[in-house]
Amino acid sequence: MNYSSYFIPTLREVPSDAVIASHRLMFRAGLLRKLANGLFAYLPLGLRSFRKVEQIVREEMDAAGALEIKPTVIVPGELWKESGRWDAMGESLLRVKNRLDNDFVVSPTAEEAFTAIVRDELSSYRQLPLNLYQINTKFRDEVRPRYGVMRGREFVMKDAYSFHADEKSLDDTYQAMGRAYRRIFQRCGLSVIPVKADSGAMGGSGSEEFMVESEIGDNTLILCKNQGKCDYAANVEKASCAPDFTQDNTAANTPPYEKIDTPNIKTIDDLCAFLKTESKTFIKTLIYRAVNIELDLSSAPVYAKLERKKTSPEAPAVYPEAFFAVAIRGDLDINEVKLAAVLKAAEVNLAGDTDVVRLTNTPVGFAGPVGLTTLPLVIDHTITAMNDAVAGALEKDLHYKHVAYGRDFKAWMIEDIRTVKAGDKCPLCGGELFTKMGNELGHIFKLGFKYTRSMNVTYLDENGKSQIPSMGCYGVGVDRTLASVIEEHHDETGIVWPASVAPYHVIIIPIKYDGVVKENADKLAAELTKAGIEVLLDDRNERPGVKFNDADLTGIPWRVVIGDKGLAQEIPQVEIKRRREKENRMIDFNKAAAELTERIREELEQLA
Amino acid sequence: MNYSSYFIPTLREVPSDAVIASHRLMFRAGLLRKLANGLFAYLPLGLRSFRKVEQIVREEMDAAGALEIKPTVIVPGELWKESGRWDAMGESLLRVKNRLDNDFVVSPTAEEAFTAIVRDELSSYRQLPLNLYQINTKFRDEVRPRYGVMRGREFVMKDAYSFHADEKSLDDTYQAMGRAYRRIFQRCGLSVIPVKADSGAMGGSGSEEFMVESEIGDNTLILCKNQGKCDYAANVEKASCAPDFTQDNTAANTPPYEKIDTPNIKTIDDLCAFLKTESKTFIKTLIYRAVNIELDLSSAPVYAKLERKKTSPEAPAVYPEAFFAVAIRGDLDINEVKLAAVLKAAEVNLAGDTDVVRLTNTPVGFAGPVGLTTLPLVIDHTITAMNDAVAGALEKDLHYKHVAYGRDFKAWMIEDIRTVKAGDKCPLCGGELFTKMGNELGHIFKLGFKYTRSMNVTYLDENGKSQIPSMGCYGVGVDRTLASVIEEHHDETGIVWPASVAPYHVIIIPIKYDGVVKENADKLAAELTKAGIEVLLDDRNERPGVKFNDADLTGIPWRVVIGDKGLAQEIPQVEIKRRREKENRMIDFNKAAAELTERIREELEQLA
Repeated sequence: MNYSSYFIPTLREVPSDAVIASHRLMFRAGLLRKLANGLFAYLPLGLRSFRKVEQIVREEMDAAGALEIKPTVIVPGELWKESGRWDAMGESLLRVKNRLDNDFVVSPTAEEAFTAIVRDELSSYRQLPLNLYQINTKFRDEVRPRYGVMRGREFVMKDAYSFHADEKSLDDTYQAMGRAYRRIFQRCGLSVIPVKADSGAMGGSGSEEFMVESEIGDNTLILCKNQGKCDYAANVEKASCAPDFTQDNTAANTPPYEKIDTPNIKTIDDLCAFLKTESKTFIKTLIYRAVNIELDLSSAPVYAKLERKKTSPEAPAVYPEAFFAVAIRGDLDINEVKLAAVLKAAEVNLAGDTDVVRLTNTPVGFAGPVGLTTLPLVIDHTITAMNDAVAGALEKDLHYKHVAYGRDFKAWMIEDIRTVKAGDKCPLCGGELFTKMGNELGHIFKLGFKYTRSMNVTYLDENGKSQIPSMGCYGVGVDRTLASVIEEHHDETGIVWPASVAPYHVIIIPIKYDGVVKENADKLAAELTKAGIEVLLDDRNERPGVKFNDADLTGIPWRVVIGDKGLAQEIPQVEIKRRREKENRMIDFNKAAAELTERIREELEQLA
Repeated sequence: MNYSSYFIPTLREVPSDAVIASHRLMFRAGLLRKLANGLFAYLPLGLRSFRKVEQIVREEMDAAGALEIKPTVIVPGELWKESGRWDAMGESLLRVKNRLDNDFVVSPTAEEAFTAIVRDELSSYRQLPLNLYQINTKFRDEVRPRYGVMRGREFVMKDAYSFHADEKSLDDTYQAMGRAYRRIFQRCGLSVIPVKADSGAMGGSGSEEFMVESEIGDNTLILCKNQGKCDYAANVEKASCAPDFTQDNTAANTPPYEKIDTPNIKTIDDLCAFLKTESKTFIKTLIYRAVNIELDLSSAPVYAKLERKKTSPEAPAVYPEAFFAVAIRGDLDINEVKLAAVLKAAEVNLAGDTDVVRLTNTPVGFAGPVGLTTLPLVIDHTITAMNDAVAGALEKDLHYKHVAYGRDFKAWMIEDIRTVKAGDKCPLCGGELFTKMGNELGHIFKLGFKYTRSMNVTYLDENGKSQIPSMGCYGVGVDRTLASVIEEHHDETGIVWPASVAPYHVIIIPIKYDGVVKENADKLAAELTKAGIEVLLDDRNERPGVKFNDADLTGIPWRVVIGDKGLAQEIPQVEIKRRREKENRMIDFNKAAAELTERIREELEQLA
């Protein structure tokens, strides 16, 4: 491709709203332009790299046995009503009405469409497993789109949905997708951190996120410092840690608990100051409201007669609402995502003051586990090691001291619900944990029966009995992956593309595109092209400095400079330079095509 | 690809709403499924052919120097307000509001987005010409979507937009796109009819449509019977014909015109019966209302003082509304598209009865050119040859006879505004014209300054003077092209794919996928794949009859049947059969790969 007949509007200025490198460089290198907030147009150079990422994703999905299909972007709202997400999804779902007043959705993901397609075709267990995917336009109506395509409104996602007759089959595909994802990111030259993750609003269990480190990332990752030896990595929403307490169930040396006056003291900090002790000697008790609870509560205190309801004919019956007292050691925070998972609740939130007062018969700030009979008590494991603690006394301005778990109170449920922090111990090796901020590029998870049940998908098993298949779901953001490549591969002068996703492999810069220089530049371009190397020939009538700057900015992996002087040598010489190295060198012009071809193939093979 | 791990849900039944072959066969062969009215999902086999059409389009666009970009599907409504199409487009435009109450459009075409992108980057004539395209999702909210993907709501279109500094440059690109389109359809194995077309609501002039014949087509094509010798072809909206009258301007033998009583006779048919003569002796005069007229009306009777208005700051001033008397020979119809073009009006419609009475001071049915002073008179060329005609007398129940053009009335404007019919004479060779119904697959046209002017796009010319570039616009429907391939290439048992867009080139059918048959089937598949031939191996445990039917239905160009018997011959034999031929033949198994490869390459080259 000749530069002068191409369209690469490079910029010297940085767009004012571009705070991260990929956003800045995608604009400056002429890869991208803005149509509106969160809506971007890929220009020719950017689209070439975009398509390469897409193709890598496609190849790895195909290699893993997934089959590509193409449903529509605009999907009937009816399907979303069947699944329940029409109501459950917030305002980030772009809803449309057409001229006939029918409801449609501009797909943010496509569980419903894929489930509907499979529902109509599935009859026998012999058709399973089935893993279908698309690489297609998605829309999420972000309130505050930013960071360029890293968090845009319209984007392209590869989303796959698999259907299974048994747990093992689901797990096999889930693992195969995990391997495919590792290969995808490896081929793009990306260092990803696969982390254990909670599947959040998507439902189901068994979930892994593929993260890249990013200062503007919207996920906190918990990682083990023993890297190389230990690969523990988890989203903070899901992370656990090794116990930092010694289990000592005996309260043999603890005096009986007794009331202490704590006038107007409602927070742990106030208590610490007042009692001149550390927060970890306190039991923090909070009241939570949970909604749409799947967990069986018939054994829970006070809820023996609570009734379940169905939100849709196919969905399992749930408890619409219930309140819980939740206790954890005073220096720790309750992880609401873990708490919701434990309760199998759609959502948990701190109860409002009115509810707290009504349910505990005490002003806010004095809840505690001792003598609590009005709510089921859920405690973190840390509580079980507390045998001489301070806790709210369920009376205004009063706490208890010398409270011992087991002796003075018992819990209905003991679970890991703590929020892990930097400095906690790794659950695998005991090493120190630290945190990073990360951006999610991919996510694989086991959805279970959430959609197949609500949308009534069945097949006949070997015995002719009707069964519901389980599902897995696997997504990769193409735009975000591309932007992340630039985040990881750039320097102060521009992008430094890995060969696998570079828009071109070689840029040829004739000092002046004329006469013998032109002739030889054309010849080299033709030779390289014939060898399958992608060449951009900078035939513009610009100063060499301008061409060099644009070559650095656009990040083409290899640069060849052809000039009169070099060609006039006894053995004609051209200068080659690898974008990611500082040094350039002169080589025999007649060997340039072969050498460049070899070096580029080497890098492509390394990435493959 | 092995059939058993693929997803090809073939059907014996025909979907009840499928009335055309492509719709029927795309469903029966497992290429397509319906998500909702006008919304379809391509299944794996269908998507393979779809992508091949897409790739042919891409290659031809690239070869013609167009550059691919990727704007969004959801486009800011602001841009459509700038161009004026937010209001001008009817309800087929799907409009969306997001959570912030911003207006968006689900793109049906992308003049605005491309013009906006170029507007921001264009500064100098040196950047022109520029031809940008996308292959992307489009949406048109059809009231009555039908015929499968032939007229769906969501579809994929290749749309290109070119920008130019002068008319010659626009014409060069327009011609290059025309050549690219001919190649695209040729490569897909399609017989298209390029026809002259009116550009309709898109504005501009210079326009060609690429049609395929179709009984359910929504366009009437006018074609010359002298095929092979004459290539005249036009959309009826634009078609012209050779004069079918002899120009005889003298009314020397015509008596003076005189009134005749025609009580209650208002139609040409009534008049014919009443006067016992033919309709072509009558002058048919109709009153039309035109809106947003660009034509200069200052010379028109009664409109000397009519004022122009601007509909937007950048658009040229237009006359919001004006009425015209329009006359044509009694046996012919007025072509409203041609009339609108002649008047440079956004739209023309027959005036309502109240307006007719008000403007002619006569009841409806008695308008005529003689003595008409209240309206400008526009006549078709046929009128100029009428020197002894019957015409309305502008009085209730009265007509004139012996009316002669030139002697008894004159026209403000004489134009070709007749609707051409089968039996009329070819304007090029005089041969007989006939009609066909056609579906539009592609359309190229010169837009002129419509968008660049309304959206304020400028560049500096060689003299540093600000200029507005002209535009061309070029579209191909990918889904429709694919469906048309099936319309043209099928028989009673299924699809008969041309090799260029076939999902696979060869289907191998082992009589029983086991033992030595399996071994040799796998070997042949591997050999063909290595040679670049795309192979589907039917490894299913099904009766041969079922496999043969599915092979015919899915239309794979070559079928190979491998069985025990053939392999056991002294020289092992397999049966090969070309889908489009009746005969099969046995060939040496060891030469099968080479022979098939050669035959497929031959066909691919013929199509290239």
